Amino acid sequence: MSVLPEGFPPAARIKDLKARVGQEVSLQGWLYNMRSKGKLAFLLVRDGSGICQCVAFSGDVPPEVFERAKSLTQETALVLRGAARADERAPGGVEIGIKDLRVVQQGPEFPIGPKEHGPDFLLGNRHLWLRSRKQAAIARVRHQVKRAIQDFFDEDGFVQVDAPIFTPSACEGTTNLFELDYFDEGKAYLTQSGQLYMEAAAMALGRVYCFGPTFRAERSKTRRHLTEFWMVEPEVAYLDLDGIMALAERFVGRIVAQCLDRCREDFKELERDTSKLEKVVPPFPRVSYDDAAAILKRKGVEFTWGDDFGAPQETAISEEFDRPVMVHRYPADVKAFYMKRDPADPRLALCVDVIAPEGCGEIIGGGQRADDLAYLEGQIAKHNLPKAAFEWYLDLRRYGSVPHGGFGLGLERTTAWLCGIEHIRETIAFPRMLYRIYP
Amino acid sequence: MSVLPEGFPPAARIKDLKARVGQEVSLQGWLYNMRSKGKLAFLLVRDGSGICQCVAFSGDVPPEVFERAKSLTQETALVLRGAARADERAPGGVEIGIKDLRVVQQGPEFPIGPKEHGPDFLLGNRHLWLRSRKQAAIARVRHQVKRAIQDFFDEDGFVQVDAPIFTPSACEGTTNLFELDYFDEGKAYLTQSGQLYMEAAAMALGRVYCFGPTFRAERSKTRRHLTEFWMVEPEVAYLDLDGIMALAERFVGRIVAQCLDRCREDFKELERDTSKLEKVVPPFPRVSYDDAAAILKRKGVEFTWGDDFGAPQETAISEEFDRPVMVHRYPADVKAFYMKRDPADPRLALCVDVIAPEGCGEIIGGGQRADDLAYLEGQIAKHNLPKAAFEWYLDLRRYGSVPHGGFGLGLERTTAWLCGIEHIRETIAFPRMLYRIYP
Repeated sequence: MSVLPEGFPPAARIKDLKARVGQEVSLQGWLYNMRSKGKLAFLLVRDGSGICQCVAFSGDVPPEVFERAKSLTQETALVLRGAARADERAPGGVEIGIKDLRVVQQGPEFPIGPKEHGPDFLLGNRHLWLRSRKQAAIARVRHQVKRAIQDFFDEDGFVQVDAPIFTPSACEGTTNLFELDYFDEGKAYLTQSGQLYMEAAAMALGRVYCFGPTFRAERSKTRRHLTEFWMVEPEVAYLDLDGIMALAERFVGRIVAQCLDRCREDFKELERDTSKLEKVVPPFPRVSYDDAAAILKRKGVEFTWGDDFGAPQETAISEEFDRPVMVHRYPADVKAFYMKRDPADPRLALCVDVIAPEGCGEIIGGGQRADDLAYLEGQIAKHNLPKAAFEWYLDLRRYGSVPHGGFGLGLERTTAWLCGIEHIRETIAFPRMLYRIYP
Repeated sequence: MSVLPEGFPPAARIKDLKARVGQEVSLQGWLYNMRSKGKLAFLLVRDGSGICQCVAFSGDVPPEVFERAKSLTQETALVLRGAARADERAPGGVEIGIKDLRVVQQGPEFPIGPKEHGPDFLLGNRHLWLRSRKQAAIARVRHQVKRAIQDFFDEDGFVQVDAPIFTPSACEGTTNLFELDYFDEGKAYLTQSGQLYMEAAAMALGRVYCFGPTFRAERSKTRRHLTEFWMVEPEVAYLDLDGIMALAERFVGRIVAQCLDRCREDFKELERDTSKLEKVVPPFPRVSYDDAAAILKRKGVEFTWGDDFGAPQETAISEEFDRPVMVHRYPADVKAFYMKRDPADPRLALCVDVIAPEGCGEIIGGGQRADDLAYLEGQIAKHNLPKAAFEWYLDLRRYGSVPHGGFGLGLERTTAWLCGIEHIRETIAFPRMLYRIYP
C-alpha cells in the first residue's frame, strides 16, 4: 500500500507476527514506550492488534535512524521495517530487529502517561484513553461477547430483528424516558426495551432477537448505570418459563466459554482470575423468590417479602453460588404489567432474573408473557397505560396468541463481569452518564 | 416442553423437516391457508422458519379432529402431530400427514387477507404484516446481510466498537438532527454517523467498525428515506483512498456472495432475479467524478460540474455497469469538512461513493480523512463549527496522526437492493418515517 515508504515490505499486524518469524516485515503503529541503553533502543510498538518489542542496535542502522529511534515520544506515529525473530522473553514471543524507521507524526507530550490519573481526567480524554493496554483489552472482550451472543442465536435459528429506537409510548411509564419532538406526530420516546416489538416479530418468525442501544433517563450515578447501553433481547414463540431458563443458562454458558477461548491474552492483560469463569457451566442453580428470601433471612440481610431485590440482596444471594443463579417467580406486583401469572400461585409472575457471581448483580431479566387478551386489557387499565398506544400489542393476543417469552441481557454488565472490572463505564467506548456526554 | 399436549413428540422446526422424514413430529405454528376437498383438508402451516403442507385425511383422524382442521381460520395458533413424509410437490419437499391437531388460540378474521391492501393500511398493521411470506423473507435476508457484514470484518481482524447515540454536537450542522434535553448538560443530538468516534477508536485498535442505528430528521418522503436506519462504518488506520476502495469492493462482494448462498429460498419467495446479483464480483469499475460527469453529458442528463449527484444522476451512471460502480474524487466543496484533499488536485476530495446497480442509488459513502491539524482547524472555522466541541477530534491530529479512512454502508438500502424491492420501508421491521411512528 502506498502509505508505506518505498522499499518497505508489506505491513504485518502484530497479532499475526508469529507466522512471519524469519521474514522481513513492516509495522505501522504508534510508540507505546521506549528505553535505551548504550547501543540499544527498545521500542514497544502498538498497532491496535497487539504490542511488539522492536530493537534498534546502533551497529545495524544508520546513525540518524538510531538517533531518531531514541528521540521518539509516547504515541508518536511510526512505520518501521525489520527482521521478525522468535524471542521467548518478548511479549507475544516475537521481536523485531529494526532496519529502518520513519516518523509519521510526532506531537507534544501525550496527556496520559504512566502516572495515575483520576477518572474525570481519563473520561474527559476517553478518545485517547482508549489507546491504553487495559482499555484496548476491554474493547476486544466486549467485541467477543457480542460475537458470542450472535453466534449462539444464529446457530439456533433465531432471526435478528432490529427494534425501533423511536417509540410512541412507554412500556413502564414515562419517568425514565428521554423525550423528543417528532415532526408533527407529537412526542416520541427513546426505547427502554425492544421486547414488545420482539413479541410481534416472534409471532412472525418464531425465534427472534434484537441487539441494540437502549436508553434510561435515570438521575442515578452508580457504577452499574449508563444512560445509553446495549441490550440483547431474544423472544421465542411456544416457550414457557422452564424453556426460557434453559435458554438463558445455555446462552450465558456459551458467552463465557467462547470468550475464555478467544480472549486469553486480553484476560491476562486485565489480570482476570479466569478460574472463576471456568466454573460457569450449566446447569445454573434455580432458586425461587421464596427460597431467595429465606437465604436473605438466614444471612441477616435486611429485606421485606414482596419487595424487589437491590444490589445488597443480589450480592448476598449470589455469594451462595459459584455460578450465575436464576431467581424465578417474583411477586407479580414488583414486575412489569405484561408478565404472565403463575397458575399455581397467582400472586407470582412467571419471571426469572439471572444474577452474576462476584457481586456483579443482575445480568438478565425475563420471563413468560401474558398471552390472554382480557388479562392484558385489565393490566393496562390497572397501570393507567394509554390503551390506544397498546392496541397493536393487544392484537398479538387477538390473532394467534401463543405461550411465549424471552429475556434481556445487558452487554455492559456482562462485559464488566467477564473482565472483572468495577465500573461499567469502562466497558463502552464512549460512556454516557448523568454528567457526561463529551467526548 | 410442557407447551405441547401430552403424547405429542418433541416439536420440529419446519426448515429442519427434511432430516425428519419417516418420523412422527410435532409442529407448533399458525395456519397460513386452508383448503378442503371431500375427505381431505390441506393446511399450510407456518412456524416462522418456513411453511409446510399438512394433510388431514378423514380416514386417519377422529371425526372431531377432521372437523376442527376444516374450521381453522387464517392465523389460528395450533399444534399438531403427524408423520413427516417426502413429497416433491409440497413446498420444502416434505409433507405432514396429520394424526392429531389442537387449537391454541383462534381469533376473529385476520385483517390482512389475500386481497390487495394499501401501504398505509399495511404499515399501520406492521406488527401483523410481518407474518406474510414476503415480509418474513425480507427479514431473513436483512438478518443475513447483517451476518455477512460482521463475518467479513471479524475475519479481517476488525474490532466492533459501538459509537455513542447521544452526541454533544453535529458533524454537519444541526438542521437534520433530532434534539433532546440531556439533564443539566443542555442539548444532546442523536447521532447521524459514528465516523468521528470510529476515527478515535481506529487510532487505538487499528481496524474498527460500528454498526448501529443512526438518525436523520429530514422532512423528506422518498422511497429511500427513513428517519431511523442502520449503518455500518468501518475505519482503518494507515489506509489511503486506494485501500479504502479495495476494502469496499471486497466487502460488498462478500455480502452479495454470502446472501446468495444462504438466502436461496427467500430470494425465490421474493421472485428476485438472482442472475443480476451473481454478476456482483470484484473488481468494481472505478470512475472519477470527472468521468462520471462526462457520462452524464454524453447521455444528456442535466448536471452542472461541481454539484453532488442526485437520484437521476446516480441511476444514469449506474446503468452503464452491471455491478456497483465506485465514483471517486468529488469536488471537496460538496463533501464534508473532514475529507482529505487530493494532493494532485486540491479542488477534489479523496472520497468515494459506491452506487448500486438497478437504480438502487448510493449504498456507500466514504474516503480518506484529513490528518493535518492546521488544515482541519481551518475547515472547522470555515464551516462555522463550534471548535470546543471538536477539540477531542483535533487531538487525534495532535497525537500520533496517521493516514486513515473508512466508509459507511446503509443496511436498508443494501437490503432493498438485494431483495429487489422499491421502497426501503419494507426492509426494517418497524419503519420510522416523517408521518409514521406507530406501531
